[in-house]
Formats: sequence, structure tokens, C-alpha cells
Amino acid sequence: MQTRRDPDQLKRLPWDQFEKLDVADKAQAFNRAGNPYHTIFPQQFDRDSLERLCRLATCIRRIAKSRPGVDFLNRLLSHKRAMLYFTQPSSRTFLSFYAACQYLGLQPAEVRDAATSSELKGESGEDTLRTFSSYFDLIIMRSPRQGFAERVAHLLSSSERPIPIINAGSGKDQHPTQALLDIYTLQRSFERLDGIDGKRVMFVGDLLRGRTVRSLSCLLTNYRNVEQFFITDPRLQVAPEALHLLDRAGVKYTVDDDFEGHIPKVDAIYMTRIQDEWDQAGDTPVDIARYSFRPEHLQILRPQAILMHPLPRRQEIAVECDRDPRAMYWRQARNGMWIRVALIATTFSVADEIFDYYRMNLA
Amino acid sequence: MQTRRDPDQLKRLPWDQFEKLDVADKAQAFNRAGNPYHTIFPQQFDRDSLERLCRLATCIRRIAKSRPGVDFLNRLLSHKRAMLYFTQPSSRTFLSFYAACQYLGLQPAEVRDAATSSELKGESGEDTLRTFSSYFDLIIMRSPRQGFAERVAHLLSSSERPIPIINAGSGKDQHPTQALLDIYTLQRSFERLDGIDGKRVMFVGDLLRGRTVRSLSCLLTNYRNVEQFFITDPRLQVAPEALHLLDRAGVKYTVDDDFEGHIPKVDAIYMTRIQDEWDQAGDTPVDIARYSFRPEHLQILRPQAILMHPLPRRQEIAVECDRDPRAMYWRQARNGMWIRVALIATTFSVADEIFDYYRMNLA
Amino acid sequence: MQTRRDPDQLKRLPWDQFEKLDVADKAQAFNRAGNPYHTIFPQQFDRDSLERLCRLATCIRRIAKSRPGVDFLNRLLSHKRAMLYFTQPSSRTFLSFYAACQYLGLQPAEVRDAATSSELKGESGEDTLRTFSSYFDLIIMRSPRQGFAERVAHLLSSSERPIPIINAGSGKDQHPTQALLDIYTLQRSFERLDGIDGKRVMFVGDLLRGRTVRSLSCLLTNYRNVEQFFITDPRLQVAPEALHLLDRAGVKYTVDDDFEGHIPKVDAIYMTRIQDEWDQAGDTPVDIARYSFRPEHLQILRPQAILMHPLPRRQEIAVECDRDPRAMYWRQARNGMWIRVALIATTFSVADEIFDYYRMNLA
Repeated sequence: MQTRRDPDQLKRLPWDQFEKLDVADKAQAFNRAGNPYHTIFPQQFDRDSLERLCRLATCIRRIAKSRPGVDFLNRLLSHKRAMLYFTQPSSRTFLSFYAACQYLGLQPAEVRDAATSSELKGESGEDTLRTFSSYFDLIIMRSPRQGFAERVAHLLSSSERPIPIINAGSGKDQHPTQALLDIYTLQRSFERLDGIDGKRVMFVGDLLRGRTVRSLSCLLTNYRNVEQFFITDPRLQVAPEALHLLDRAGVKYTVDDDFEGHIPKVDAIYMTRIQDEWDQAGDTPVDIARYSFRPEHLQILRPQAILMHPLPRRQEIAVECDRDPRAMYWRQARNGMWIRVALIATTFSVADEIFDYYRMNLA
Repeated sequence: MQTRRDPDQLKRLPWDQFEKLDVADKAQAFNRAGNPYHTIFPQQFDRDSLERLCRLATCIRRIAKSRPGVDFLNRLLSHKRAMLYFTQPSSRTFLSFYAACQYLGLQPAEVRDAATSSELKGESGEDTLRTFSSYFDLIIMRSPRQGFAERVAHLLSSSERPIPIINAGSGKDQHPTQALLDIYTLQRSFERLDGIDGKRVMFVGDLLRGRTVRSLSCLLTNYRNVEQFFITDPRLQVAPEALHLLDRAGVKYTVDDDFEGHIPKVDAIYMTRIQDEWDQAGDTPVDIARYSFRPEHLQILRPQAILMHPLPRRQEIAVECDRDPRAMYWRQARNGMWIRVALIATTFSVADEIFDYYRMNLA
Repeated sequence: MQTRRDPDQLKRLPWDQFEKLDVADKAQAFNRAGNPYHTIFPQQFDRDSLERLCRLATCIRRIAKSRPGVDFLNRLLSHKRAMLYFTQPSSRTFLSFYAACQYLGLQPAEVRDAATSSELKGESGEDTLRTFSSYFDLIIMRSPRQGFAERVAHLLSSSERPIPIINAGSGKDQHPTQALLDIYTLQRSFERLDGIDGKRVMFVGDLLRGRTVRSLSCLLTNYRNVEQFFITDPRLQVAPEALHLLDRAGVKYTVDDDFEGHIPKVDAIYMTRIQDEWDQAGDTPVDIARYSFRPEHLQILRPQAILMHPLPRRQEIAVECDRDPRAMYWRQARNGMWIRVALIATTFSVADEIFDYYRMNLA
């Protein structure tokens, strides 16, 4: 990502002007030295920063296998404290961030229920987050409010305590750390198969509302010749903006509803859940059974392909598939913890210390 | 407990076969080297493991009196992290486990409200727990679902991350750590009176639904000549299975409703609360006043007898009794913390380190 | 504060007698060596203890700027554990206490939702708190029940584990640590202007129900010639008892509703929020707009005056005022964390260690 405008100038723009900037300018404002300071959307990452982050996650994962290694990691950020502010239900993202903080010695505090907070007393969301910035050194947030993490990052950037924000999912738009763990899972799985370049990735299920699909699809444009398949009921198809982004990047893609027909052709299948918690009463439900992975599909899946799911699942993948070595979703969840450790370490500029430790003790 | 079947074979049984095993086989599957790895039900303990656990709790309690002692304990498991998953209301059990983890440096995370979790999104309980196993090294769980802790322990045993499960109360069936703290309280109280052997223990109150009574009654069969009294309204009497267990163990017991008549005869009175949170609308309430311990009862209680209660209490024991030295329930609560520290230390095989420290510094 | 009665005797009084003691006697019972052991109400502080606490907070704030400083603080109470029991909604107070505990290495546990606790099972509040005292070394509590923190402090004083209680807000009556942070903010702001003595402080908004106003007004009587203004709608005016207290202390004050008229005259404006969470249905609402600080008021505010607010705010202060250097409310929030670190350090008698570290490393 090239320097386009002076980041300090961008930070001082009023929100109504900042909001209208294009994503490359925003990335400029939120990054420092090529890495995210605030992590808000996946476009802040390029291939270099993605590969470095994956390498770091792998080092951390190996360091954490020994007691001295865990002790080393635990000391890295033991002088810092993190606020996990999750006003939308979450287990996986919340807990993997919580565990990631613990690995680095970063002491976590949490607010998960708006009913215990000052919002009850009529406080604005902006004031609530600014308050957190008074007490903590990092805010990890999930909010139902679209664009809110971005707004908070911009607000804090011009305050006296510009602590980093990590977006753990905002509204229907973005979920950058989910995309990072998906990239890490693909990278690990295809490590000995030339990596992610040239692979075919199929997305299945709720492509319209699932923010993980949008974020991963975007990050995959950093790799060469990755072909994308969007396979689902037309009412759940991916939004046109996501495809425009692929068009601009010159990415080959397919949009249709022939799930079984594509299974034998692809290297990775990314199943997703129907997000009916967003539904309005009266909506007609989609028959998800047509887009579910059943045990018999294991027969037509390529031997070296992988089956992914951001979890939680319902019936999209039969429990009987769990023991197949190509079922990657449990490892994917654990990858999420490692990549989040790596991201937080990068945010606080201790990545080099970790690489050094690895080089001296484990390489 | 003798080896009966190969534990590895037992672990690989499908759940529907495992479920039907008898309790000794299950204990075999869940124990390692005579101690629980997964702690699911009280039958996993025999007299040796109970006595060792009580000794360990006492060592820990004394070590924790000094600053260097606390520092020693805090380092023991500082490389591990625990998930406390409590989807049923709990203060005492939750907090004493939480404090127990803190004593060992084991970093705790908690999920107490199903509304903040993925169950809202239709995830199965099994998937939720398997997810926790991705991020943590120990799961302590309380669930309203009967047998669920056992099911999870079995599920994880055959997964890639077979981390230990501690059952902190499941459905109406078992609450093993409550029984352990009760044993520890009896053992401490009768330390200079020949221990638990030969004592008379009276259970009063809600013997039908109170899982603590069932668990303690079962553990007491490990001691010699302990006589048990089940004294309450017939509608709240202990379930026949609990008595069959005593019959098989050759234990002498009495079942009636003459509370005052028995007070002068027994060494320990175990009062319990009517668990009306399980009641259906329309049930006829029991008059608990007849089975309440009032200040005048202190006159007829033996001088060396003790008065126990798992807490929380309502009117079963008058507040005026709290200052009597035979009222043991507050100490009992604190014993709960120490025995849980001891149990977790045993689970992670650091008990010997603690015994060594004690021998070198305090014995 | 002079010794008036034997504190040990006071502790042994039954609650119904203790409750009727005057505030100086109660302060006697709750203090140790001139500093609060239990921190229940602001009258426990005199000018000496306030100034010492402010000096300590400033030392801590400066020590915490370096990594070795944070490490030093983190070790001070790493052998202790705190329970934060907040059954009333709170963000700011809760989180700043939480962060304060973390700064001292004091491991926090929390109960914020009565629904996860034993109160559901019919336990008395006194039993619940006594249970916490079994597992923790400090209880920080906020309760909707008036006088409850005082009652708990008295109850524990005569128990086997008389651990300290800090009142983080009880009912409508007192909120001593908020008053402490307000004093600290005034002291820091007027450090080079002869301190708090001789200043004019104006209270605006909900003076009837806001417990912060009552607590700060009371603490200000420890300073010389501080003039107080109570400016609001007559229906929200400060309670007569608060004015009687000022009368007895010989403090000059003004009670009226001329907000704009007083702005140019005062050194500090303390805005507060209408606490309509206490309202009964059918109450007539007050037009708060008349008592709101708008950007144009910055023109008539003295150059060295400060604008305070305990937060959360609604429309009482326009967001446009936030960047004015006299807007002190965000710094005030952060001061709250530092003064709470100082208070906890004082409670556990590690203040001298901190002063020594400061003297040797930073003075």
C-alpha cells in the first residue's frame, strides 16, 4: 500500500468527511508502517502483512508448546490491559480473543451485556467507548451498529488517548479477524501444495448476510489466480459490491446454486450458517438442506481439499463428517486464537521479539 | 478400584454404548492412576483418593497463609487457562472455583449467560463445549442438562484435545465437588475424634431434589460404620436408588420425619434448602418450618456435633445460630475453595510439588 | 478525627444500635490509623487523609508511565483477590475499579447480574456477601439498597474474616469514591492556583437524587472558604440535610436556578445528569435544557475555571465543548482510576512502599 495522503491530516478530518474517503485512504489512516494499528477492515492487509502475520502465528503456536515459551509470551504485554466490548452474542470470537490476550499476559476485562453498562442511562456509544479508552490500552469490540468500530477508531485517533481498536465484527459489514483466521487455515492446509495461489475456494450458504464471506473473499484477492465460487439460493447470494470488488481485482468467479456439482472441482469449501437472527418476521425461509454437506459428499470431495466453517454450525455440516481429516473447522477455530495472538502482538509492536525468541530457541 | 476394562477401549465406545456402562467402568474411563482426570461423579473417588485430597487441601490452606506460599501456588499453573461454563445460576460453586483457579495461577474465563453465547445461534451444546476445548486447558461446567458433563467428557476423550472436565453440578443428578467439600469439612471437624468412621450423619430438608445429599451419601460409604439418617417430609424423601446404593454397601440408615427426635443422637446435621426453582406451578408446598434448625435446638445438639448446610440457606437455619462454634457452614464454604484447589492441582498432576513444598517449608 | 469511643466496642454493637450512632462514631469504627479500612461514606476522610490520597494517586500515575513501574505496582497485591459485586448498572465505576485492581496485581472476580447469583434461590443479601468474604480479600460493592454497604461492613467486622468493604455507590445515599476522584480532579486542576481553598464550586442538574453531589459537597467542607452553589430547578434541588451539614460546618452557599447568571462567577462547574432511572411512572419531567452547558457558555466561563461531569452525560454538556481545555470530564474519569488505585493501596497498607519507590526512582 503506497502512501497517498498524510495520515495525520486524515485523522484530523471531521467524521462526515472521513467517512466518505475511499478504503485505501482509510487504510492509510488506520495503519502504521504497513501494519494495522486500528484493525477495522480486511483491506488494511496486503500480501506481505498477511504472510508475516501467518508466520508469526505459527511461531507463537510452537513457542506455546513449552512452559518456558508460555512464560515468555505471558510477560510480553503484562503491563497492558484490554477491554473486550461485545454487545452482540458471540462465543468463539469473544473467547478466542480472551484467550489470545491471556497468552500475551494482556489482562482482559469484559462488557458483554449492554444492560450492565451506561447505555442504559442514555449515554452515547461514542462516550461509552471513549470512557473505556480512559482505563484500558486496547479495545476489542463487536457491535450490531454498522461502521461503528471505524467511527470509534477515528474518534480516538484525535483524542488524548488514541489506543488501538480491533473490530471483532460490526453490523453486517466486516469481520476482519475471521478472515485472517480463514487465510491462516488455508495457508497451513496448503503449505506443501504451493500455498493459497491458484486454489479454488467455494462459498456456500448465507452469502448475503454472512460478513465472514465478504471479508475472506476480499482478502483472497491478495493471492494469485484464486478462483471463487458463490454457491447458494439466489435469495442468499452475495451482494453485488463484493463481486464488483472481484471484477476490479480481475478475479475469476462463479455465481450459481449447483452445490453438489461443484464439490469435486474445488480445493476448499467454506460452509456458512443461515443468519436468521437478522430476519424480520414474515420472511420466507430458505431450505438450507440443499446447501448442507452430508457424509456422502465426502466421497466426491478431492483427497487434498479441505472443509471449512466459521462456526457455529447447525445442520450445514453433518456431525458424522467431523472425524474426516479434511474437516478443518475445529482446527480453524483454534487457528483463530493463534492469529489473534499474532495480531495483538503486531499491534503492540512485539512481533520482532517473538521472531527473535523463536529463532534462538526453536528454529 | 480395580482395573476391569482397558480405559482406551472404553473411550472409543460410541456414546450410546458408553452411556449404558456401569459406574465402575465409567470411573475407569475417567480416572488416571487412581485419581479423576475428568471429575464427573463421586464414585470416582475411593477412600485413598479422598484422604489424599483432604491432606492436600490442608497443605494448600496452610501454604496460602504466607506471601511466599501464595507466590509458589500462583506459579504452579500459570501456563494454563480454565473456562468456567455455568449456564445454571450459581454463586458459591462458581466463585469458589474461580478463586481456586486464581490460587493456582490458572487464568479463568467465564461464560455464565447462555444469551451471550452461540447457543442462541442454534449451536449444539456439544459443539459449544468442543469449541471451549479449542481455547482452554480445563472446563469447569454446571448445566441443567442431566448427564451432560459425562457426555462432554466422553466426547472430548476421543477428540484431538482431550482436556479435563470438572462437573460443577449437572441437572438433578450429581455435584461431586460439593460432596468433596462436605467430606473435607467432616474430616477436619472430627480430626481428633477418630475421623469420619463411626459417625452418625443426618440429612434434613429436600432430600429428593438436592443433588448434594445424594453425592455426599454416596461418598460416605467409603468410611466404616457411618450411619445415615434421612429426615424430612415424605414428599421430599430421598430417592430409592440412593437407598439401594446404601443397601448394596451394607450401610445402616434411618428414613423418617422426626427431626427434633434425632437431633440429640447424631454427630453431624446436614440441613438443605427446598429447591423450589425446580417446582412446577400447582405443586403443593411443603411446610419447611418443621424441618428448620432453630436456636433452641442448640440446647439438644451434642457438644461435639456439627451443623452443616451447603448454602444458600433460607429459613432452614436461624441466623442466630451462626455464632455457635458448632455452626460449620461458613467454614464449609471456605473449605469448598480449598478442596477445589486440591482437586485442580491433582487433575494437573502438581499435587506432589505441593506436598514437597509443604514438607520443606512448613512441616 | 479524634478518638471518641473504642472501635472494638463499636464493632461488637448489634446492628440496630450501630445504625443509630452518629457519623463520627461510625467513621471511628470503620477507620484504622486515620485511614478508611472499610470505605463507606465520605465523612471518613479528613483533610490530611484526602491530601495524602491525592499525593499517592499522583505518585502512582507517574510510576505507571514506565514498564518497570507497572511491574512494581503489579507485584504489590498479587497475593490478594477482589470481588466486584455490582447489582446496579455501572460502567465507569465498575471498570475503573477493575482496572485499579489490575494495576496492583489484585486479581478481580465479578458478579454483576443478580440472575447468576444465589439471590435467585432466596438467599439474604447478608449471606451472599458473607459468602464472598469466604473466597476473596476485598469486596467492592454497588447496591440499590440504601445503607447496605455499611451494614455489610459492620457484619463482617465481627465475623471470622473481617475483609475490607469499599462502597461503590449504595442506594441514593453515598458514593464516596466518586467524591474522591472529584476532589483529586479539583486538586490537580488548581494545583498552581493555591489548591481547592477559596474556590467557588457550582453544582447543576439533579441535585436531589445525584449521590455524587451530596458526597462531594460534604468532602469540600474539609477545605477553607470554599463557596458552594446549588443551581437547578426547584424540584431537583439538593436535600435539606445536605444544606444543614454545610450550615453546621459554616460553609457559604447559594441555592437558586439562575444557571447562566452564575457561570462567569465560579471556578468549577459540576454538571450532573437527570437520574430518571429512579423515576416513578407519572412524574412530570423537568426541562433539563435550561440546565445544560452549551458551546456559547464557553465564552462566559472564566479562563482558569473547569467544567466537570461525573458521566455518563446525556445532553447536559454539548459534545462540541469536549475539545476545550477547560472540559475536564474525560481526565476526571481517568483520575477516578488513579484515586481508586490509591485507595486500595491505602486499604492494604502498601502506600508507604509506593511513596518509597517514587522517592527512589522518580522524585
